Amino acid sequence: MLAETLAAIRPADPGALAEARAHQDRLTKPRGSLGVLEEVAVRLAGAAGVSPPPMPEPAALAIFAADHGVHARGVSPWPQEVTVQMVANFLSGGAVANAFAAQAGASVTVVDMGVAADLPDAPDLVKHKVAYGTADLSEGPAMTADQAVSALEAGIAVAKGLVDGGARCLITGDMGIANTTASAALVSAFTGKDPAEVTGRGTGIDDETHAHKVGVVRAALRANALTGFAPSSPGEVLRALAGVGGFEHAAIAGFALYGAAARVPVILDGVIAGAAALVAAALAPAAVDHWVAGHRSAEPGHTAALAHLGLRPLVELELRLGEGTGGLLAHPMVCAAVRVMHEVATFDSAGVTEKPV
Amino acid sequence: MLAETLAAIRPADPGALAEARAHQDRLTKPRGSLGVLEEVAVRLAGAAGVSPPPMPEPAALAIFAADHGVHARGVSPWPQEVTVQMVANFLSGGAVANAFAAQAGASVTVVDMGVAADLPDAPDLVKHKVAYGTADLSEGPAMTADQAVSALEAGIAVAKGLVDGGARCLITGDMGIANTTASAALVSAFTGKDPAEVTGRGTGIDDETHAHKVGVVRAALRANALTGFAPSSPGEVLRALAGVGGFEHAAIAGFALYGAAARVPVILDGVIAGAAALVAAALAPAAVDHWVAGHRSAEPGHTAALAHLGLRPLVELELRLGEGTGGLLAHPMVCAAVRVMHEVATFDSAGVTEKPV
Repeated sequence: MLAETLAAIRPADPGALAEARAHQDRLTKPRGSLGVLEEVAVRLAGAAGVSPPPMPEPAALAIFAADHGVHARGVSPWPQEVTVQMVANFLSGGAVANAFAAQAGASVTVVDMGVAADLPDAPDLVKHKVAYGTADLSEGPAMTADQAVSALEAGIAVAKGLVDGGARCLITGDMGIANTTASAALVSAFTGKDPAEVTGRGTGIDDETHAHKVGVVRAALRANALTGFAPSSPGEVLRALAGVGGFEHAAIAGFALYGAAARVPVILDGVIAGAAALVAAALAPAAVDHWVAGHRSAEPGHTAALAHLGLRPLVELELRLGEGTGGLLAHPMVCAAVRVMHEVATFDSAGVTEKPV
Repeated sequence: MLAETLAAIRPADPGALAEARAHQDRLTKPRGSLGVLEEVAVRLAGAAGVSPPPMPEPAALAIFAADHGVHARGVSPWPQEVTVQMVANFLSGGAVANAFAAQAGASVTVVDMGVAADLPDAPDLVKHKVAYGTADLSEGPAMTADQAVSALEAGIAVAKGLVDGGARCLITGDMGIANTTASAALVSAFTGKDPAEVTGRGTGIDDETHAHKVGVVRAALRANALTGFAPSSPGEVLRALAGVGGFEHAAIAGFALYGAAARVPVILDGVIAGAAALVAAALAPAAVDHWVAGHRSAEPGHTAALAHLGLRPLVELELRLGEGTGGLLAHPMVCAAVRVMHEVATFDSAGVTEKPV
């Protein structure tokens, strides 16, 4: 299933890219005046292989939830049970992600990838529990190789289910107390940046805890032989994911890879998605052409991940909540960018005089 | 009508501000994790005088269109007739503003403030033509004092009509070839910045034309005795507006003042709105509490205007199109920010464990 997904991923179509760029220049607006949004529309045309690209609606948010063994090391001020409490909050519609999804007209699917508790059945809950949380990544691999593949394939399955159900845009979401620690370790491994540069304050920690968290990330890279990591094979990529990732990172990587394979655009949320995208891009570099960076989170590791991926985020409002909130905020802008390609008149059709070139 | 509007403007309500801040901290999210959007929601509570503030929907965009005598000085590569052609494009639904408004669910009203041609009647066109374009601001006042007041009051009337019709958010829009020249002159006058710092490339000019444009702005300030301007009375503010403004600037100032008076939030678009807002804020400083900066345009004068107003823009995507496009992009985010206040569960109600403070 993973191999099949990877094999189906194609880079942006050069013909559609060129056609989209030319179309942008015929529209009744000064050339380039839509700034970054022109590039978004062109990018989605390349990804879809057709210009104009299909409208990225309706959108579907998937919130992948999991717990982390490293939580025991005191990297977060929040108790671990908040993960399961927030899953219940998502399912009853009370979280920020629900409010933002309602605003964007996006559906919300919650996926139990490895919450450290049994969850009752619920209509919007998909169960892919790999384990009751990962092992402590600072002492050795967070998960086994089999668990990593299983979690990746769960993400693929969730994405396939949503696309088969009509979703035309996928938005990544996450929930997992302590998951910015795993994210920092993944970002450090895949970008080569020092843990001190990419480890942030998550949902809010003091200087002392932050210094401790940097040390835990450094220990994790050492314990998993990822210091100076340079992946030379898919097996190596999976080893790094299993070493310091979370089940939600693996699932988000699979989710983003399926979007690329199915040519359905994926809006990446914050640092957890950025870390997962580094894994996915290492497995299939062409997948990046199918992704849009929703926002830039306050976490320093996210900036490093986006730079490595070559993605420019649409929203920069210092959000640091996760859940998919940044991706959901970006969705109406992505729609607006594509809508321009479908609905705006050309200089010719509108009888507007074009500026002499 | 202007005096009545100015008299009705109240600053943000301190009680509602405090209540909104306290409410934000009870919601199931880490404190401050929604970044700038928390401040937007709190700001709108203060403006409305109630927490949570009303949802800013439906939104109404008004595009104020006018021509500029200074166009004859060669400050833009676009012919003047593009103003009237684009008005026709707005009315037939073919412009970017129409596509963005459709995406945001906003209505579009086009207002002829002073287009240099007679316009046929149309259902979405409101006629407030003050003149067939302003006089050349680089040689003396662009308009008379009476024209300035008349244009301001037209903006007030348009806003009142939209609010009476049910709009709960006002978005500013503009169309007028050469209006970035008038904007630069207004920004220079009201912020004290040198014309070279605040004059941009508008919809696209080369270095030579840009240098010429800076010179025209400088001449305009001199011709209108606005070098070293420091407004000491409403009359002085109106003199500056009449000296170097456009009819659309005056109307947008009135539009934004009415929103403040009616406690209906106003999303400001780009540099034309920023310049107009400087005029409005000089007439009624408390009005600023009722405005949200939709975006930061690529024009340097816009950054100067926003800094002077103390507003942080929500969208920073290098747009330089005008029409209200930046304000329209921001609208879903403003709604999302307010929706959080209405729909998100509190730690208590959701049974989520709060982080120890």
